[in-house]
Amino acid sequence: MPRRRVSMGAYTDYSPALMTDMYEYTMLDACLKDGTADRKCVFEVFTRHLPEGRRYGVVAGTGRILDALEHFHLSEGDLKFLSDRKVVSPETIKWLENFRFSGTIKGYREGEMFFPNSPILQVEGTFGECTLLETLILSVLNYDSAVASAASRMVSAAKDRPCMDMGGRRTNEWAAVAAARAAVVGGFKGTANLLAAQIYGLKAIGTAAHCFTLVHDDERQAFRSQIAALGENTTLLVDTYNIEEAVKTAVEVAGPQLGGVRIDSGDLASLAQRVRNQLDALGATNTKITVTNDLDEYALAALQTAPVDSYGVGTMLVTGSGAPTCAMVYKLTEREGADGVMTPVAKKSKNKATVPGRKLAFRSYEYNLADCEHIISGSEKALAAYQPNPEWKNLLVDYVDHGTIDPQYQGHDAIMAAHEYRAKALAELPITAQSLMKGEPVIPTETTVL
Amino acid sequence: MPRRRVSMGAYTDYSPALMTDMYEYTMLDACLKDGTADRKCVFEVFTRHLPEGRRYGVVAGTGRILDALEHFHLSEGDLKFLSDRKVVSPETIKWLENFRFSGTIKGYREGEMFFPNSPILQVEGTFGECTLLETLILSVLNYDSAVASAASRMVSAAKDRPCMDMGGRRTNEWAAVAAARAAVVGGFKGTANLLAAQIYGLKAIGTAAHCFTLVHDDERQAFRSQIAALGENTTLLVDTYNIEEAVKTAVEVAGPQLGGVRIDSGDLASLAQRVRNQLDALGATNTKITVTNDLDEYALAALQTAPVDSYGVGTMLVTGSGAPTCAMVYKLTEREGADGVMTPVAKKSKNKATVPGRKLAFRSYEYNLADCEHIISGSEKALAAYQPNPEWKNLLVDYVDHGTIDPQYQGHDAIMAAHEYRAKALAELPITAQSLMKGEPVIPTETTVL
Repeated sequence: MPRRRVSMGAYTDYSPALMTDMYEYTMLDACLKDGTADRKCVFEVFTRHLPEGRRYGVVAGTGRILDALEHFHLSEGDLKFLSDRKVVSPETIKWLENFRFSGTIKGYREGEMFFPNSPILQVEGTFGECTLLETLILSVLNYDSAVASAASRMVSAAKDRPCMDMGGRRTNEWAAVAAARAAVVGGFKGTANLLAAQIYGLKAIGTAAHCFTLVHDDERQAFRSQIAALGENTTLLVDTYNIEEAVKTAVEVAGPQLGGVRIDSGDLASLAQRVRNQLDALGATNTKITVTNDLDEYALAALQTAPVDSYGVGTMLVTGSGAPTCAMVYKLTEREGADGVMTPVAKKSKNKATVPGRKLAFRSYEYNLADCEHIISGSEKALAAYQPNPEWKNLLVDYVDHGTIDPQYQGHDAIMAAHEYRAKALAELPITAQSLMKGEPVIPTETTVL
Repeated sequence: MPRRRVSMGAYTDYSPALMTDMYEYTMLDACLKDGTADRKCVFEVFTRHLPEGRRYGVVAGTGRILDALEHFHLSEGDLKFLSDRKVVSPETIKWLENFRFSGTIKGYREGEMFFPNSPILQVEGTFGECTLLETLILSVLNYDSAVASAASRMVSAAKDRPCMDMGGRRTNEWAAVAAARAAVVGGFKGTANLLAAQIYGLKAIGTAAHCFTLVHDDERQAFRSQIAALGENTTLLVDTYNIEEAVKTAVEVAGPQLGGVRIDSGDLASLAQRVRNQLDALGATNTKITVTNDLDEYALAALQTAPVDSYGVGTMLVTGSGAPTCAMVYKLTEREGADGVMTPVAKKSKNKATVPGRKLAFRSYEYNLADCEHIISGSEKALAAYQPNPEWKNLLVDYVDHGTIDPQYQGHDAIMAAHEYRAKALAELPITAQSLMKGEPVIPTETTVL
């Protein structure tokens, strides 16, 4: 697959610069007036907790943030809108005219595991430029990581059987594209979504719908038509009327070389067993069985002993299997004071207090298995002097250096690298991570304030 | 607000034509080869059940489908992609070159209540053109209606207090735009999302974030700055450090004309009560109190007696408050046979069987309250001869007539009309609809097959 540079068409007419909450612009306006907009700042993205009972999360979406950053500038239409609605003052409009993010971004890799308080993304720049990114960064990371985290659990539950994204119809049409990408980061092997396949170079997969059988005069004609168009290696949908008859017809029409059959209703385990035996008896021993129908990780685990070859997962994938968002937040942790010195800051809101200071993040291992997430916080000076254990894994990579994006984290190759990385990082966690039993995060997070 | 025609920039480079599952195109390919692609068809969108315990759903998104239809044609890039990936044959590429939907669409209004089996959308055209729309139509209706349905419950629970969408950061960045629109259909009064405000002409609202207080040397300077930029009618965030001190500072800085304060943490009801008393004691009797912090319809109901003036709702709005999708499906119900006669069809899949034949839909009333949803199904001829009770409300309106879109259902005015319509339609349901207790749909759906 050739490496594809992504240029989100969505951002051509509507830039991501207005994919934001109004208060980001009104705060910018006030801070430009009083001079604090130029203060150097560090913002960090983290979540206070994983969804109930989850053992780990999987980071996804960072590459999409980089794509969006490339287009994060205001069009004439955007400026006119902000001006007409009096969202900001004319002076701020002027400031926004040539806006480009010129800061630095570090963070966890896509496909990396995360835990409560992991500093998933760290954005450093002036207050003005960092605050404008808040909503967009959170939208991307909260949704994509929710999908990747659910996908990863499903892939574990499916053991070595491939999982395919078929969930586009059950979420917003653009979320569907992001979900397909995040599913692959989370371990899925392909997607039914053509736009995701086009934009990100993903493998596209598909079978047929019940309407295809119904529009034909009978099932035999439908199967004949599909094989004529797609070849005998196609997958025929066999549960429109009567599964046993459909399987018989399918093998009669395609011959024993038939690629596969799909079952989309009923008791999937016992139906798969019956269909497998029937296919074998008909000589179609290499014909694959794929099943679909509101699958989640628990259903996949229950199907482990059934003779199924692959899974199509829809609703529960794109809605994060009960956790459709990650509760990630974007918080100011350090800023320049009136004296020009960088100072750790934190809010003290009840149950929502934050840890002041920028963070370093490492993972330690014992017998090749992760045993702790170490978050080190402190002043710029203290962190510069800090010597981590050399055997720890440094979890922060450099995404953007003073406005320059590292392209290795964008496009198709980055997604496939994240796909591989997830499998490796998951294998390095205690095996309890792969349990579907509800429990605590599989490793503790220790925060050290220097 | 001037009426805005919507031209989704997202569709300029990436047309909605690839926001679809691959099998729609492979089915088209097979059907073009065997001649069934030209068969006249009727597809219908419905859900088999509401989310557990919900009394009704609210339709939203149909106007966005019309926007997408205007752009539903394949660019050269799209055709090249389908060709390079060998998704379809060269003959099908040719057919797709000038593709425009030329069929007819009827359906429920946006803002209308729906129940199990309500035919929310009815798409009539050739098999080829109708099948290509499946995924996109479902993506839009499933997500937008999930948000509008949750919004409607929240608005009921909030009584007359305005609810504002602040959820953009907790869902995909484009889903956020759709969610803001759907929230207004569902009864919300405004959104923090600027792009939604721009595209759909919605009211934009906002306060300030904790980082705004933190970037300043102290809270007093932050409040001064915000008032200098936005005037004393602005809303100050008072829970960064200590709420009581912040309220005192706020009134000192702004004077008793201060527009509002926002509380985002802790026990909102008791804090609102304390803050109200403090504000009144300081003479700021007209200063409003807005609260935020993972609100859902249950939290809003619990706040009914607290002195709160408005609500900012985030996560639970954009994730459908536990039901992030509506389980709507798009099923072939009638098609032309080899003999040219329209014939009702249905699949017989276990637990997923469908009712054959196109549907009419009416709601009947007793003492001005809805008492039944009537779904009438049958052959084209039987339906043409059918005489409904003249007192029933006909639930299907004409959206598209042979490819021509009725513009009254697009843009800002259509959203505001849907907003009004929802309030009226909800008031016509038995009051149990507004209960948050789990239960059955508030009126039964009766299906009659002629």
